[in-house]
Amino acid sequence: MAVYTDITETDLKDFLAQYEAGELLSYKGIAEGVENSNFLLHTSKGPLILTLYEKRVEKNDLPFFLGLMHHLADRGLSCPLPLPRKDGALLGELSGRPAALISFLEGMWLRKPEAKHCREVGKALAQMHVAGEGFTLKRPNALSLEGWKTLWEKSKDRADEVEKGLEGDIGGEIAFLAENWPKELPEGVIHADLFPDNVFFLEDELSGLIDFYFACNDFLVYDLSICINAWCFEKDGAYNVTKGMAMIEGYQSVRPLSDAEAAALPILARGSALRFFLTRLYDWLTTPAGALVVKKDPLEYLHKLRFHQKIASAAEYGMTR
Amino acid sequence: MAVYTDITETDLKDFLAQYEAGELLSYKGIAEGVENSNFLLHTSKGPLILTLYEKRVEKNDLPFFLGLMHHLADRGLSCPLPLPRKDGALLGELSGRPAALISFLEGMWLRKPEAKHCREVGKALAQMHVAGEGFTLKRPNALSLEGWKTLWEKSKDRADEVEKGLEGDIGGEIAFLAENWPKELPEGVIHADLFPDNVFFLEDELSGLIDFYFACNDFLVYDLSICINAWCFEKDGAYNVTKGMAMIEGYQSVRPLSDAEAAALPILARGSALRFFLTRLYDWLTTPAGALVVKKDPLEYLHKLRFHQKIASAAEYGMTR
Repeated sequence: MAVYTDITETDLKDFLAQYEAGELLSYKGIAEGVENSNFLLHTSKGPLILTLYEKRVEKNDLPFFLGLMHHLADRGLSCPLPLPRKDGALLGELSGRPAALISFLEGMWLRKPEAKHCREVGKALAQMHVAGEGFTLKRPNALSLEGWKTLWEKSKDRADEVEKGLEGDIGGEIAFLAENWPKELPEGVIHADLFPDNVFFLEDELSGLIDFYFACNDFLVYDLSICINAWCFEKDGAYNVTKGMAMIEGYQSVRPLSDAEAAALPILARGSALRFFLTRLYDWLTTPAGALVVKKDPLEYLHKLRFHQKIASAAEYGMTR
Repeated sequence: MAVYTDITETDLKDFLAQYEAGELLSYKGIAEGVENSNFLLHTSKGPLILTLYEKRVEKNDLPFFLGLMHHLADRGLSCPLPLPRKDGALLGELSGRPAALISFLEGMWLRKPEAKHCREVGKALAQMHVAGEGFTLKRPNALSLEGWKTLWEKSKDRADEVEKGLEGDIGGEIAFLAENWPKELPEGVIHADLFPDNVFFLEDELSGLIDFYFACNDFLVYDLSICINAWCFEKDGAYNVTKGMAMIEGYQSVRPLSDAEAAALPILARGSALRFFLTRLYDWLTTPAGALVVKKDPLEYLHKLRFHQKIASAAEYGMTR
């Protein structure tokens, strides 16, 4: 849950006066997003989301994130659309924070997604990859090989607190990935964090993708490997190949994978499992007890990583062609 | 901020099926209320508030609170209206908690209320007192003389941690109030917690009163003394007699105070300042460091109490007749 900055109705009205947003009727801080403060506004023109960007988001990245949402929504992807101010800017300031006004998407994220939902997610991910073509701003993936090494340097001395022998295991995995990471695969804008809480559904229909604040440029199929990690394992740690099959089929129904992409899927899945393991490990070791944020167990992604280490081909994830 | 219980969209849909609430479009946990978990729902019929009652609310009191909101809304007061289920019940269950679906009020609470707003609050408080007539359920005020003694017993040994000499001062005050508390004044249903965050405005017009979860039966004018404490002091501790005058005039424009009520105002204001001092002191001493809840400084109400101890008549609060 996240509301880090309170706002007064007078400041908010001054802020809204810079937009064609209608008359303010109410605003409520909402318990969504962990990086920013989010408010749900009701205006005479309808509901809107107001996001205040807190310190964890790099201000220089905001034009990339907001521009991307604008680009994707323009191309018909159902994602939040930043409203331009009367002067054309997508970004304003409120209570001393960079702030944006964003369209509200109806829909709910699924606590218990099924295979049919995974198919829709695969499809929407590929649609996002296609819609991202032509977006001219660039943002390197800060959480790829180099970023993993940096994170690991900060955590490795205490890694054995989480599981004995981890220091050697993860060190070896990072060396392996550095050695074997693909060099050339189709690249583009990836979401990089398309977990269930970032995908809305109305009944069984996908109604939108949200939270583009990890988006960056990387291999497109790496994004699919993130979704496989995020959607296709059961709570008990088992890989659900029916979900994997649906996810990959959905993706390929829009954007078929090349042979090289398919062949790279197992190592990319190792990389993305490692990525979430490392950020969770770092947060686990550094978040003070009693803090507002719920700590996520890094072991979940250690188990996923070990699963992927035994995978030899994309067929084992459920890829049928 | 408060979302203590997460809910799944499937459980929520099952819950909503018991109401004529339309089709669910979205739900967001909102950062409002400290006792309960609150969600803002969008449905095809409009917005609604879903409240899950957490452990701090006594389940046996819920029929009083929900019945009261229904009674007041029926009589034209702008306050949240609990929706009845198809079977007529106002209370259901969700995620193992008692839960109610309540109409959504547009409006915003004022971070910096002015005298004109205090007048509206006084008026609305009196309207609530009049509208409460005929409500048949009863709930004694658990936070009056006897409740203060109990709270004080739990805190007094550590009171000097907050300010030296406090143990003697507050002990003496409680004895004084027990001796001099009024015996007979007009009684009825009071809100008992009408702070600025429980009053919504649209522009300068009061649009509704919320949060009836401290409501109870007590002297009506005691409720006015709570509002004087909550609305008419400045951040620096100064009493703003212009606000007090507006508050009392607004109240009397709907329900004139008797001479006995006016005469009792200073001692009742001492009592209500003590009441908030004692609950804040108790929370201050017992809330663990790093807990989710923001601790409110008990000293604010100690200063108010000392102000009231020097007041001889309601005229000093701004009462003009």
